Amino acid sequence: MKSGLLIDVKFDSFGKFEPFRELMPGREIISWRDENNRPTDLGGIHYALGWKPDAGLFASMPDLKVMFSVGAGVDHILCDPTLPDLPLVRFVDAGLTSRMSEWVCLQCLMHLRQQRTYDKQQSERIWRDHKQPDASDLRVGIMGMGVLGCNSARKLKALGFRVNGWSRSRKEIDGVSCYEGAQLDEFLGNSDIIVGLLPLTPQTTGIFNSALFAKLPRETPIGGPVFINAGRGKSQVEADIVSALETGVLGGISLDVFENEPLDSDSALWVMDNAILTPHVASVSDADALARHVAGQIERFEAGLELQHLVDMQVGY
Amino acid sequence: MKSGLLIDVKFDSFGKFEPFRELMPGREIISWRDENNRPTDLGGIHYALGWKPDAGLFASMPDLKVMFSVGAGVDHILCDPTLPDLPLVRFVDAGLTSRMSEWVCLQCLMHLRQQRTYDKQQSERIWRDHKQPDASDLRVGIMGMGVLGCNSARKLKALGFRVNGWSRSRKEIDGVSCYEGAQLDEFLGNSDIIVGLLPLTPQTTGIFNSALFAKLPRETPIGGPVFINAGRGKSQVEADIVSALETGVLGGISLDVFENEPLDSDSALWVMDNAILTPHVASVSDADALARHVAGQIERFEAGLELQHLVDMQVGY
Repeated sequence: MKSGLLIDVKFDSFGKFEPFRELMPGREIISWRDENNRPTDLGGIHYALGWKPDAGLFASMPDLKVMFSVGAGVDHILCDPTLPDLPLVRFVDAGLTSRMSEWVCLQCLMHLRQQRTYDKQQSERIWRDHKQPDASDLRVGIMGMGVLGCNSARKLKALGFRVNGWSRSRKEIDGVSCYEGAQLDEFLGNSDIIVGLLPLTPQTTGIFNSALFAKLPRETPIGGPVFINAGRGKSQVEADIVSALETGVLGGISLDVFENEPLDSDSALWVMDNAILTPHVASVSDADALARHVAGQIERFEAGLELQHLVDMQVGY
Repeated sequence: MKSGLLIDVKFDSFGKFEPFRELMPGREIISWRDENNRPTDLGGIHYALGWKPDAGLFASMPDLKVMFSVGAGVDHILCDPTLPDLPLVRFVDAGLTSRMSEWVCLQCLMHLRQQRTYDKQQSERIWRDHKQPDASDLRVGIMGMGVLGCNSARKLKALGFRVNGWSRSRKEIDGVSCYEGAQLDEFLGNSDIIVGLLPLTPQTTGIFNSALFAKLPRETPIGGPVFINAGRGKSQVEADIVSALETGVLGGISLDVFENEPLDSDSALWVMDNAILTPHVASVSDADALARHVAGQIERFEAGLELQHLVDMQVGY
């Protein structure tokens, strides 16, 4: 028997272990959520895959060698103060990337095309047209120009939007106006829509707050500026978002992530005007692709090759 | 005084004559909708611009030389049986094209990403995720591969969709599976979403009916097949659409055009499940761009050059 893989993935739609069993025959696949079948001894298990894994779980595995994250983000693992000093591999996948940029494009188009206004009219059987700017009239500013940000930028440009990118270190991307860390204010002042695709780190926690929103343009071709977030919920201050929508500092929002998930049914966000909320589905890891990725990295590791997509523990992503 | 331009444009948001006056100084610009200031004598007017112009109006202009359509479509002019045998110029404009393909991309993305399901969940404060296919899992079939169809195909491909195109005569377009007139059934059987961008002619009147919908795939990665129409409302049989949605032959629709506009408030379409309706706003002609186009064509005409974007009266577009 090859060394096992322990899986602790806390989201409902992830129930498929077959792809892992099929791709890694002879390797024990252990579901930590299956409380009745938890192993009493975690010795001898070299690999663990997690989405919000139990705090202390990885530390309690004496023979753990590699940790895997189910998503592109890893804050849900790094937040465990007992986390062992072991390599952590993020999930990078073409499908994960394309689904994220599809969601970003959909949200930008919905705001450009005043979809919530037309939704409301449809529900009231009202026939009325509104002045319609072009995509080329709008500047979309992406915060976080990693794999997801760059792919989104490419598709947004194909749709005709003008695209700005902001990242810690300055990037050079054809057709994208790139800004680096210290140029945040200038970037914000030139963006009608901002799209958050940032990892969660101490620097990005709460970054989307009243002070930041106040630096966006007062007027845009679609009314007030729009805030879109598909990065991490804890990067946003939801009380500030509600207040910015109420006072018109923001003209609209699209949120896929929230400070606490699931979003509390009492949240004011659910019913704000021009607010589009989705339940952390912008880019959900596909079990088949994930299994291929994990199996491939384990194969590399056991062949003595370097692991890919390693997290830099110093910068936190 | 140069020969005048008579304008009869029947839609509410078109109220701007300034761009025409600014671009054509010394030329009389006559608004036919302004009933109190209608000229009693239509003699000496060489040009007319219309959107659903009064039947008989153009025939009553003894010195008319060139007719202009406000849109890419011309059926709203050709339906006048008294129409004089004069050149008819359609409106082609980069903004008109890009707005149309933005709308098409938005609708395809909304169906791909199950937006109406998430809209409903948001209104009920429900947090629940659903299995999400990729754009690359879906085949979008565009019916009508003119300027608007080709531009939509290009953007849909950039978003990752697989794209089919159907047109009267076969086209060759890179990365698009092209079908010609007689291959309609094969085209339909291979399209999970169909997008109508057809001109209205005797051949396309009522083409989107039960018989056509029955040729679409039974199952698609997003449930039933989806019908999207931004061409002409009289190409669709709305009773058949309602029935196809009720029986599951269609899984969703996006309509910007209707058999009769404005859509009657009694129509069943307003409240069908997974139906997205917009009030003929997919691509509205911009008055500034339209004025530039008309002024440019009149200038060509008076300089003895050939008019551009002429309608072929035999095929009707």
